This record gives sequence, C-alpha cells and structure tokens, in this order.
Amino acid sequence: MTEIHAIILAGGSGVRFWPLSRETSPKQMLQIVGEDTLLRQTIKRMNGFVPPENIWIVTTEDKAQGIRFHIDPLGAMAKRIQFINEPVGRNTAPAVGLTAIHLNHLSPDSIMIVLPSDHAIPDTERFLKDLKLAVEGAQKDHLVTFGIKPTRPETGYGYIKTKPDFGKPDKLDKPDKLLKVERFFEKPDLKTAKKYLSDGGYFWNSGIFVFKTSQILSEIQTLLPPLYKTLKKIESHLFSPDKPNRPHKPDKLNRPEKLDRLDKPDRPDKPDRPSPLCAMHYAKLDPISLDYGIMERSDNIRMVPATFKWSDLGSWAALDEIIEKDKTGNILKGNTIDIGSRNSTVFVGDRLVATIGLKDMVVVDTPDATLVSPKERVQEVRKVVEALKKTNHEEHLIHKTVERPWGSYTVLEKGDRYKIKRVVLKPRARLSLQLHRKRSEHWVVVAGVARVTRENETYLVRTNESTFIPINTKHRLENPKEVPLQIIEVQNGDYVEEDDIVRFSDDYNRI
Amino acid sequence: MTEIHAIILAGGSGVRFWPLSRETSPKQMLQIVGEDTLLRQTIKRMNGFVPPENIWIVTTEDKAQGIRFHIDPLGAMAKRIQFINEPVGRNTAPAVGLTAIHLNHLSPDSIMIVLPSDHAIPDTERFLKDLKLAVEGAQKDHLVTFGIKPTRPETGYGYIKTKPDFGKPDKLDKPDKLLKVERFFEKPDLKTAKKYLSDGGYFWNSGIFVFKTSQILSEIQTLLPPLYKTLKKIESHLFSPDKPNRPHKPDKLNRPEKLDRLDKPDRPDKPDRPSPLCAMHYAKLDPISLDYGIMERSDNIRMVPATFKWSDLGSWAALDEIIEKDKTGNILKGNTIDIGSRNSTVFVGDRLVATIGLKDMVVVDTPDATLVSPKERVQEVRKVVEALKKTNHEEHLIHKTVERPWGSYTVLEKGDRYKIKRVVLKPRARLSLQLHRKRSEHWVVVAGVARVTRENETYLVRTNESTFIPINTKHRLENPKEVPLQIIEVQNGDYVEEDDIVRFSDDYNRI
Repeated sequence: MTEIHAIILAGGSGVRFWPLSRETSPKQMLQIVGEDTLLRQTIKRMNGFVPPENIWIVTTEDKAQGIRFHIDPLGAMAKRIQFINEPVGRNTAPAVGLTAIHLNHLSPDSIMIVLPSDHAIPDTERFLKDLKLAVEGAQKDHLVTFGIKPTRPETGYGYIKTKPDFGKPDKLDKPDKLLKVERFFEKPDLKTAKKYLSDGGYFWNSGIFVFKTSQILSEIQTLLPPLYKTLKKIESHLFSPDKPNRPHKPDKLNRPEKLDRLDKPDRPDKPDRPSPLCAMHYAKLDPISLDYGIMERSDNIRMVPATFKWSDLGSWAALDEIIEKDKTGNILKGNTIDIGSRNSTVFVGDRLVATIGLKDMVVVDTPDATLVSPKERVQEVRKVVEALKKTNHEEHLIHKTVERPWGSYTVLEKGDRYKIKRVVLKPRARLSLQLHRKRSEHWVVVAGVARVTRENETYLVRTNESTFIPINTKHRLENPKEVPLQIIEVQNGDYVEEDDIVRFSDDYNRI
Repeated sequence: MTEIHAIILAGGSGVRFWPLSRETSPKQMLQIVGEDTLLRQTIKRMNGFVPPENIWIVTTEDKAQGIRFHIDPLGAMAKRIQFINEPVGRNTAPAVGLTAIHLNHLSPDSIMIVLPSDHAIPDTERFLKDLKLAVEGAQKDHLVTFGIKPTRPETGYGYIKTKPDFGKPDKLDKPDKLLKVERFFEKPDLKTAKKYLSDGGYFWNSGIFVFKTSQILSEIQTLLPPLYKTLKKIESHLFSPDKPNRPHKPDKLNRPEKLDRLDKPDRPDKPDRPSPLCAMHYAKLDPISLDYGIMERSDNIRMVPATFKWSDLGSWAALDEIIEKDKTGNILKGNTIDIGSRNSTVFVGDRLVATIGLKDMVVVDTPDATLVSPKERVQEVRKVVEALKKTNHEEHLIHKTVERPWGSYTVLEKGDRYKIKRVVLKPRARLSLQLHRKRSEHWVVVAGVARVTRENETYLVRTNESTFIPINTKHRLENPKEVPLQIIEVQNGDYVEEDDIVRFSDDYNRI
C-alpha cells in the first residue's frame, strides 16, 4: 500500500482577520466558521483518512509551540501529529519541498496531500470523496489540484482553465474523472473574471494539492533548480548515511521534535542534531508559492472539479461565501442589536454592538479592539495593523485572553503599578515553579481549589479564600482537582509585565 | 435692583446619545464637547452673571440626587445651587410654571432666564453679552428668546420668523436691538427649510428664554388656564399664609430641600411639608412645552439674534456643528486609527476602534457597548434603547463605571458567583457602614491607604496589603488620606448585585 500523508501548511499570520487574529492568534487558530478553529477542523477532516502519525504540520519555529498547545484539545491524537518547523517562512514551495525530503526518507513512494490550515470546507464527506479521486490521480504520477466551480466573477482568487475536451460545464456537477489543466491564471480584474465566467471551463484555484513525494521532488528539480539544490544540501545534513531513517516521534510533553529543528548548533554529543547551516540555507531561499513555482509551469497537472463548498476566507468579506445569511443578507454573530442593516456582517463576542442602517459593512469586535469597514475595503485592515505597529499599540500582538498549555489568563485591567488577571487552570494542571523580582501577587480563588507552593510550604486555598505571594518568593499555582480552578490575581509592583519571571521547573519545558 | 434667576432645565434623559448616555447618565451629565459636562458648563456659564443661590436646577425627583452628586465637583458654589424637583416630568411649560410660583413668593418682580442644561455654547462672553440685551427686554415685560442665524436648511430645529421691518438680514451681524417676532414654526421639511433660508428673516429657535416671573405667570393664566389653575392649587399648599416666604437653603449634606418635594405625606409635626395632593395635581398636568404652549401663541415675544455659536446637540450627528473637523471632515476622539474615512465621527475612549473608508458615519464606543450608524439614521438609536429594554440587556441603564458621592466604582468582570470591582475613594471620603447578606469581599489596596472598620475593630490597610470582609459582617471603607484610595474588590457569593446592602450610617443620607 502507498502511504498517504497530510501536510497542513500553518505558517500564515492572517493579518486580514484582525482584530480577531493577532500575532499570537493567527487566522488558522480562529473559530470563524464551524464548531472549531480552522486548523483543528483541518486536522479533524483528515483524521481517519490518514493515521495521525501521517499528519504533518508545517509551520515556522516561532509559531510551533503555540500551535502544539493549540491542538492539545484534540487529545491523544494531537500528540501523534508531527511537525516540520521552518526556521523562517519562505512561502509554500520551500515548505512543501522541505517536507518532501523528510517524507522521501520515510517512504519515497508516499503521497502528499497539501492542505492550507485556514480554509473553510463545511462538508467533510464530499471533500473526502473528491480527495480519493485526487489520490488516484497522484498515483498515476500527476500533480493534482482541486478546482472550485465559480459562482461569481471573483477577483480575489486565482483561476484554473481546463482543456476544452474535458471541462464541459454541463458535466461538472457529477465529475467522475480528472480534468486536464490547460493553464493557471493569477487573480484577474473584474472584466477578465466576468469573461472567465461566461466562457466556462474556468475554476477557482483552491490551493489544495495531491502528488507523490518523488514526483514533486522531480518537478522541483526541473522547474526550481535552486530550491532543489538547497533541499539536497539540507537533506545531506539531516539524513547523513550514519543516521537511520525513522519516523519522528514527538515526546509526551509536546516538544517539537529535535529532528525538525534546523537552527540548533552542531553538538558532538548529539550527532543527529542538524547544523545551523541547514537553517541558513533555508533562510536564503527565495520565497515562492507552489502555485507560481510549480503548478503554473508544469504540464503534468490534473484537476478534480470539487463537489464540496469551499472558501479560502481571504478577508472578513469572505464570510459571505460560507455562512448562511439572514433574509436581509446580514450575518449577525454575538451580542448584537441591529436596526435595519442590509448585507452586513457584525461579528462580535459578549460586548454589545448596536448597528443601524448599515449597508455592505463589516463590524468586528473583540474585548480590546473594534473594526468598522465597508466590505469592499476590508482588505485594508493590513494598513490598520501596520499603523498599530508604528504607534506603540499592542492590539495586534495578543488578545486580552491568552491561551497557555495549563489554561488561560485574561488581563482585566492594567493600571499604575498594578495589573489584574483572571487565571483559569485546567484540571490537574500547574504553572511553573517561579518567582517575580518586581511584583507581589494577591490570589483570590473564585472557583475550585488551589494548591499553592510558597517557598517551603504547600497549602490549599479554597473558593472565597485568598493568599499572598510576596516579591522575590518562589511559588507555584496548581489545580489538584478534576474541575477548573479560577483565581483573580492582583499584581502590585513597579513593573508588572510578563517578562518578569524566573522559572525553576516547568511541565511544559519553558525554562 | 431686579433679582435675576437662572433656571436650568435638567429633566431630560438623552436617549439619543446612547451608548454614552444611560438612564443614570443622561445627556446633560456627559462631557461631549468642551472641558466639562454640559450641565456643569451651563452652571459655570451663569456663575457671576447671577449669584449661585439664584441658580435653580429643575429636574425630576428620581434624577435629583444623581445631579446633586454630579455638580459636587463645582465645589462650594454647588452647595448654594437650589433644586426644584418635579414628581414626574411634564415637559417645560409646567416645569417653568412650577419654578415661577416659587420665585413669585421670593420676589415677584424677579427675572427668569430659562436654560436647557444640555446645549453647547462654546463662547460664554458673547452669550452673556446677548443675555444682557434679553434681560433688558424682559424688564420691559416682553417674553424674550434667542434666535440663531441659520447656516443650512436644518430640519431638526424649530424656526422663528421676525417681523420684516425689524429683521433685515444685513443688519443681523451687529444687532443692537430686540427684534419683534412674527411667528414660531415647528420643525420643517427640507423644502420648507430651504425656503426659510432663502427668504431670510428666519432664525433657529434656541430654546433659551428670558422673562419676568410675574409676566410668565400672567401669560400662563391667559394661554394655558388649566396649568395656571393647577399651579395656583400647588401654590396654596406650598405657601399657605402661616408659612413665611423664605429662600430655600439646601443643607450641607446636599439633600434636596424639603420645600422642593411635592410627594411627601402631610405630617402634623412638619407643617411645612407639602401635601401629596401637590404631586398628584402636578402629575395630572398635560405635558406641554413652553415653546408650543406660550411662545408660539403669545404676541408679546421679542427675539435677540444670537451672536454666539450654539448647538442643541440633538444627536451624535449634531457634533458636526460644534466640534472642529479635520481636513477630511472627520471628528476622531479617543483611541482611534482611521484609514481614509470622510465626514465621519468616531467618538471613543481607551478601547481601540479602527475605521476604514467610512463615509458620513458615526461610531461611538464605551467600555461595554458600541454603536455604528450612518449619520442620517443616528436618531434611530432610540430604537436600539427600546430593543435593549425588551431583551433584558442592561447596557441602557448604567455604565461600567458608576459615579458615587464618595468616588466611583468600575465593574471589571462579573462571573458565576463572583464580581470584581475597582473602587476609587476621593480624599477623606468614606462609604456607608454596611453589610451584605449574601456575599463576602476581598479587598486589595493598589493605591493609597484604607481605613477599614470590621465589626468592632478598625485598622489600616496599605498599598499591596489586603483584607477580607466575611458575609454578614458590618464594615466600612474609608480614605483617611489626602490622595485617592484605590482598591480591587473581589466579591464572592450566591448573589453579587448592588441591592444586597444594609446601610447603618451614611454620610450621604442614603439609609
């Protein structure tokens, strides 16, 4: 049997979904549509089609730990998922190439399914049916892509033109074969998009690809020789003849696998650690997308006309494609009151947002920031994020609620010399043994029971009890119970920032 | 010398400024334009023109205490200001009539300046200059009003037409005399408003009036006999022959003056308390405005063409009249980032609001609620407030920060069985001696020093110290210092609402 691997590309930042996305909460980690975050939905969609060990998340070093914590709610399966960590992002062609040289050592004839981590595909059953067709095509050494039947002259997507003798529009509703691709087209202007639509035989490029590992490496060799050369160099460092080929087994603490890291110095005592040369080589690669570098140039492409509903969720305006609107064309999510708006999206949480008479607008609200924009200009949210960076704002970095492996904390208020947080610990979880040089902490337990270590004493603090951690005092907060622990923490001190922490012991390897 | 009194009408609720206005924070209490709230600006504007004892705030019983606390920052002067409390609001003609019967006993020949409490008048000097002219007119027994020279065909204001032989447009920039009024007109449609503007001799009705007490009572007698009859009944109860005429002197604790209260039962031991009959009579009056009931019908009206800038701030869109816009026509106040909006108002606080490409829109943000509306529909915010009432929302009632005579509190978070507040006490202020039946409280001092009374003990809690108030325990929080005290309060209990309070002693008479 051919091995099948699902490669989930999760290196994106998703600036276009600010203020819901932040640097530490990129788009793939957001629950925008459906019952879970986009990344976790992508993983769940593949679970069963391939074993969890054959699911690979490709992301950058700086995002890897956050993504590990993020997929933790998927349970035991999550621990079997493997990571390929790029030292820096270099777009999809290098990312897929790097993954291919890993897989090539595991099983050269394996098939790779390359999946964006941040697209919406509501109907898994249809998707998997189409995917089977694509895998069959890949087994015949084709590079297979999925084309989405266009419903409007969209200028935000690339297009795929199929060969006339295959792509008759009237046959597309029940596809039973792969279509030959004539050409890929970049995002068109409106006039061109309209022509594509009336001509027929054009599809939206979904960015989902299926091919053999050996085949994509061969295509890279032909079409992107500099990339191929660098990949070969990295391969020779990673898999020297004295290192056996073996599957990656992430350890139980969810640490990124050593073999995935390209930036660690050579260590004589750790012969399997790659050289920093690998990272250096990778960083020097030209960023290029798989679409542009391979798919648009190869004459070996086949396309599955997708029967599933799909959106790349390119901006807040794209919710229109995938979320059912009410009868006046609105999407109202969260604590909203609307008076007579039309074709508008109001995407908020618990804070109240009242809207009157909006037309084709988007309003997005989060605890610390709100966005208001016409749909047709919502892509300019990038400019907002740029402006935030320039003006010492922090609303593009983190949310008020920050997810941690042990639970989460929410900054309720920051004032002069104090900060107030709500801290929630998962059952049986504990924070690191730590101390703060510049602040003391008052803890009031509002739900559950806390086990507190303070220097040499350990004691329980129950609901409606409090305790005090003086400055420079070694301490640890722990949830000894099977229900969540919730405390209110009042920090006092000259300096109340996150980086005032000395860790002595940590369950999550953060020392 | 004729006595001059300034009558400030402060009974309005200002629903049209939601979410900044709330039931407990009506429009006159908001700082929308200028350096202080509209009501306090109105008082300051009159201070010097009349002595503080001659400033009367007319409001409804339910709002009186809140307004007392609100004007407290004006210092010693505020304590000399007098209140007339209506049992219920009955529009401006009854309110002015009720005040007139009070003044009539103090000094029948006095002059009343009737002022809305929620208009914007940025230039006090010009206003007072015009006011002198009006007072001269009132001394000649005219009812005097101020006309604002229209700058656009506004449909939101009433109009005043002056008599042709007086109101030549070319003479209006330097008025040196009162103009005779031909007629008042209700808010016109756009076509009519345009005609007024091109015909000339029309002015906006400012709602500011000046007349003798005796004269307005005489006009009410002629034009509104039922109101006059009721006022006379109330007068006979309030000022029976055995009660001396005397000015009202509010006591030092800012309690509304007894004589102002129309709703107290007769008490043989308190012969000067008015009968509940007065309140009953007043409540039965037909609501009618002074404009409609008197000004539009009297032939004794004179108008001062105003030289001052003015806005009645009828809605968020009215800020355009009074706040200087940037070069693209925007008013951006607070933590905003804008990309290419035009003619839009973004009125926010510390939370970030980012706007892209808005045209003629209003965005208003407060800690717990946001409003987004085109300017031309922003009057429909009334419908939002109605919807809030119907749907068990609370965002129309109070703000997250609630002003109190001793300082303020801010609800930082309310969760299951707990509530977190930041409490700020003014120097030397203290809360009531109180207890809670259903909650305990943890207090952490984050600035200043607290003096805490807990049953029979009294002790100091310093910055970075904490204390605990168990359930059912008599306690008091006090600021013994000259700097503000700030504490974080974590409430725990089955029920954590404001009405779980038993007060034993209170500096502000709230037992």
